[in-house]
Amino acid sequence: MTALSIDGQRLLRRLDELAHIGAIPGGGVCRLAFSDEDKAGRDHVVRWMKDLKLDVRIDAIGNVIGLRKGKTNTPPVMTGSHIDTVRTGGRYDGNLGVLAGLEVIETLNHAEVVTQRPLAVAFFSNEEGARFAPDMMGSLVFQGDLSTEDALNTVGIDGSSVRDNITRIGYQGSLVTSGNYPVHAFVELHIEQGPILDKEHITLGAVQSVQGISWTEFCFHGVSNHAGTTPMSMRHDAGYAASALSQFVRALALDMGNNQVATVGSMELRPNLCNVVANYARVTVDLRNTDDDLLKQAEMRVSAFVEELCRQEGLRMDRRSLARFSPVHFDPTIVALVEETAAEFGMKAHRMVSGAGHDAQILARMCPSGMIFVPSKAGISHNVKEFTEPSDLEAGANTLLRVLLKLTES
Amino acid sequence: MTALSIDGQRLLRRLDELAHIGAIPGGGVCRLAFSDEDKAGRDHVVRWMKDLKLDVRIDAIGNVIGLRKGKTNTPPVMTGSHIDTVRTGGRYDGNLGVLAGLEVIETLNHAEVVTQRPLAVAFFSNEEGARFAPDMMGSLVFQGDLSTEDALNTVGIDGSSVRDNITRIGYQGSLVTSGNYPVHAFVELHIEQGPILDKEHITLGAVQSVQGISWTEFCFHGVSNHAGTTPMSMRHDAGYAASALSQFVRALALDMGNNQVATVGSMELRPNLCNVVANYARVTVDLRNTDDDLLKQAEMRVSAFVEELCRQEGLRMDRRSLARFSPVHFDPTIVALVEETAAEFGMKAHRMVSGAGHDAQILARMCPSGMIFVPSKAGISHNVKEFTEPSDLEAGANTLLRVLLKLTES
Repeated sequence: MTALSIDGQRLLRRLDELAHIGAIPGGGVCRLAFSDEDKAGRDHVVRWMKDLKLDVRIDAIGNVIGLRKGKTNTPPVMTGSHIDTVRTGGRYDGNLGVLAGLEVIETLNHAEVVTQRPLAVAFFSNEEGARFAPDMMGSLVFQGDLSTEDALNTVGIDGSSVRDNITRIGYQGSLVTSGNYPVHAFVELHIEQGPILDKEHITLGAVQSVQGISWTEFCFHGVSNHAGTTPMSMRHDAGYAASALSQFVRALALDMGNNQVATVGSMELRPNLCNVVANYARVTVDLRNTDDDLLKQAEMRVSAFVEELCRQEGLRMDRRSLARFSPVHFDPTIVALVEETAAEFGMKAHRMVSGAGHDAQILARMCPSGMIFVPSKAGISHNVKEFTEPSDLEAGANTLLRVLLKLTES
Repeated sequence: MTALSIDGQRLLRRLDELAHIGAIPGGGVCRLAFSDEDKAGRDHVVRWMKDLKLDVRIDAIGNVIGLRKGKTNTPPVMTGSHIDTVRTGGRYDGNLGVLAGLEVIETLNHAEVVTQRPLAVAFFSNEEGARFAPDMMGSLVFQGDLSTEDALNTVGIDGSSVRDNITRIGYQGSLVTSGNYPVHAFVELHIEQGPILDKEHITLGAVQSVQGISWTEFCFHGVSNHAGTTPMSMRHDAGYAASALSQFVRALALDMGNNQVATVGSMELRPNLCNVVANYARVTVDLRNTDDDLLKQAEMRVSAFVEELCRQEGLRMDRRSLARFSPVHFDPTIVALVEETAAEFGMKAHRMVSGAGHDAQILARMCPSGMIFVPSKAGISHNVKEFTEPSDLEAGANTLLRVLLKLTES
């Protein structure tokens, strides 16, 4: 059984075929959650699942689970990821984990292997959160920490609700999940979405943990005034404060060292005119750390800076937490299993941290879970230029195959 | 004749009446150039001019000139300003200069004074530039440095042209200007739009010069990437560069001292998402100085900073000049005349710099020109909260009256 190998060409063909649905210029994909493109992608993957004789079931938030029977009627070993994308997404993020799962199934089908435990391939709804917040919505409903009702009532950036959209695309199923679908273990294959493996020329990552995430929106309120007539000393410039915060978070991350990243990715000034001192600035701060105490420390340092800044500049400020996830530590047994399996291929897996959020971190709340990473060229992701070498995709899928087989026997 | 005084209540009534046209919540005004509200405002002021027996003429860009005959048929002494506003404008900016001019006329009519030279009250089209660039469009056409054709062909932020709009509102007249309308001298009464007079409790400003203006747009091009997975050292963050530039221009202005102001009022990030390192940032820099050499020095320091920043951060950058006006120095005789006149009222006029652009700086290219400033409460302008005390409005208009009378005899 250890001689089994997935078919790398077949995996590439599926990745390419799925990437044609919602394709955008430059080789990227736009399949926002619950959009028409998402529906077309779902239909395509469901057809593949059925062709592979999987028993396909859909839950109330549109999570799709394809089950392959085992010798015993026990909770399945599950793999999977998501097929929704950000607006200018790549073709690997999420899709790889789902299609590598199908590749594992096809390999087992072809070899007529029947595993001890059942095996399931899932794709979870709205992992990206690019249209409806929160991200990882599907896995959160599956696991039970987000109620189906709350998820369905979510209103997206275009003003429509999840409920309206899931009804329109016909993906509200009757499978009962919400924490009541037992899973023996969960393993997700994903591209790194960061530069570390690529830079170090390492093919496989054994993910130990997921960074904790803290997203805060700060709104500064100053005084709109004439850029020519207002002396520098008499300004209450909200735009200046937003920029100062952006500079501070960079310095904070550098000061705190390797495990801390900090980003101001979004900023909005009003009235946003060349010759008017901004009276309003909205700015988001994204802080991540694998250590929750350090993450809290970073949050406190940002708070202290912002409060002092407002005092100095004579600004009013309000803030709002947009997201807060504590760091997640994956099951040590599964991390070790990924490492061992890589060694069987003569490879040394890199024990590493995920900087991105993944469905596996939600599944980790209900069952032993882990992740396998493969490199992202130059670390580029959420971008049409996202790329992973075919040989790396194949190595990742073969590692997934073996890890899943071992888990089905455990 | 020196006993003449304007009627402060009548001036206030006219200001209030005009402010009702295009009124917006909070006491402000929206009369964008060549809009329906601008037309209604124009009609109203033209009616007042005709009631005051002025000979009203309109040129090809819609500048309106009301002429009061003198004893001699010589080039008139002119006063005036503009009645167009920014989108969220106040009721004094521009309007005061025009309506104080009418108040001077009404005072002279009532006293049956016939001046030596003719006296003219003008309002120039599109001083604000809030809908069609460049600002001071009307006075530039009047003076001749902007051709009527180029002005008419200007396309505004809503995609329509000046030509379409001026035709629609019926304000394209036949008066020949474009540098061929001789003016003996020009004096404009305006609110300061800055905080200096208000802060110093001074009623009158004798404006010596207008700051030179340099507007540049910088676009930074970096790499869009995942905010969680991309180590700080591997980022090419366009948003960080925009913020760094905003911080730099503040430091530059403080370093260069009182005559230098510098503002980043407009900033745009893409994709502008909390969890994505921005691959694009557009930012504007507004630099002003009364000394052209110092202004050039400031421009060079910004350039050097931006180039070094791009090298450090691994960014590409392009820039575009949005506006460049050299500093303007008003006629020393008129500055002194304003000062003398203030002294006649027992007031000490503050010799000062205008940080804002005004029609008078364009008229200064064709005839001896000057400006009188009155305070703006807290320096607030381009804002519905713009406010000047009635007693200051009255003092300004009385100073204008006497300065104009002296000039008509010169």
